[in-house]
Amino acid sequence: MENLGAEDVERLRAIYEPLTVAVRELVDATIRTEADAEAVATARAEIEAATARLRSRQLDGPFGVRFGSDGSQMPWGNAVIGLRNPLAPPVSLRPLPGGGRQADFHLGAAYEGPPGHVHGGVAALILDHVLGEAACASAFDKPRLTGTITLRYRRITRLGDLHAEAAIVRTEGVKTFTAGHLSDADGITVEAEGVFIAPRWARD
Amino acid sequence: MENLGAEDVERLRAIYEPLTVAVRELVDATIRTEADAEAVATARAEIEAATARLRSRQLDGPFGVRFGSDGSQMPWGNAVIGLRNPLAPPVSLRPLPGGGRQADFHLGAAYEGPPGHVHGGVAALILDHVLGEAACASAFDKPRLTGTITLRYRRITRLGDLHAEAAIVRTEGVKTFTAGHLSDADGITVEAEGVFIAPRWARD
Repeated sequence: MENLGAEDVERLRAIYEPLTVAVRELVDATIRTEADAEAVATARAEIEAATARLRSRQLDGPFGVRFGSDGSQMPWGNAVIGLRNPLAPPVSLRPLPGGGRQADFHLGAAYEGPPGHVHGGVAALILDHVLGEAACASAFDKPRLTGTITLRYRRITRLGDLHAEAAIVRTEGVKTFTAGHLSDADGITVEAEGVFIAPRWARD
Repeated sequence: MENLGAEDVERLRAIYEPLTVAVRELVDATIRTEADAEAVATARAEIEAATARLRSRQLDGPFGVRFGSDGSQMPWGNAVIGLRNPLAPPVSLRPLPGGGRQADFHLGAAYEGPPGHVHGGVAALILDHVLGEAACASAFDKPRLTGTITLRYRRITRLGDLHAEAAIVRTEGVKTFTAGHLSDADGITVEAEGVFIAPRWARD
């Protein structure tokens, strides 16, 4: 699974991404279903059959990060962006004009805290990732780990279509300071600032 | 689904909790599978059949919070503790001697960030919830929303069996200050402090 060529990566994506999409739908249906005991038992048997089939050949541990032969990363198991992780909304990052990273994504029933609203910790989960990616981008894609992050909640965030963005504020040696926010159609709901640190093994 | 008696609550739990447990297993298998394209396609068909069955009768929106006739809350859709939410590890909270809340739980492949380790944002997700619950406990279970939370990462946290706890530091009017941490077998990995605020409608 290492040093895969671009065609191999696309072949694997074509096999596994639709599976992840199907499981994300199932997660939503699991939370919202009002089906009766018999229908739920039948669905459970189908799910257990699928799980056994998938587990017939599997990795010993978590997915980790694989690399393409061009050095590209495949963080497919990642909890926020992983294309093989049904827990990831997923968040798909793109450059923010002027530097930084931004993403538009949808959060449904699986991300609920207060009724009808995003769990405060889910806002933290996503902002941690977006601020961290903005910090990495400054370092030519060298890894950065969260040192400290602070989140200020202006108001609760409705479940639905959301936006997040972050950019670098300044850099001091191995520390990169970034700031960003989460917003819905009516404006900013959560502000974040963080300090991200180059791990020892990734320093020059 | 409102003002359910204790027997109704137990009946619903017996129907839906095993479904959630099965979907959590499927999420893990989806990330770790190395099954070939044909096996994955068959599993996907089984999953889509289960989803259609569950969606044949479902809530229009997210789960929200239901209430038992004794006033007990059923936050079954919650992203951290929900017994009907496959994304929730789940975290099950219990009192911390001397006040506060604690939980022991397991994080597997679905919660990965750095290879083999907990996503920094997942640590934030769980600590936000544990600190918030510690704040609510002080207010005789009145709701509290996150105002501000700060997380300090001492080191990265290995996936596996983990512990989180939080307690109240002080209270000032509608604000409750709590602090806590995440730890593994070798000690504390992430420290957190937060300010939780009573929403207007829940003030005396």
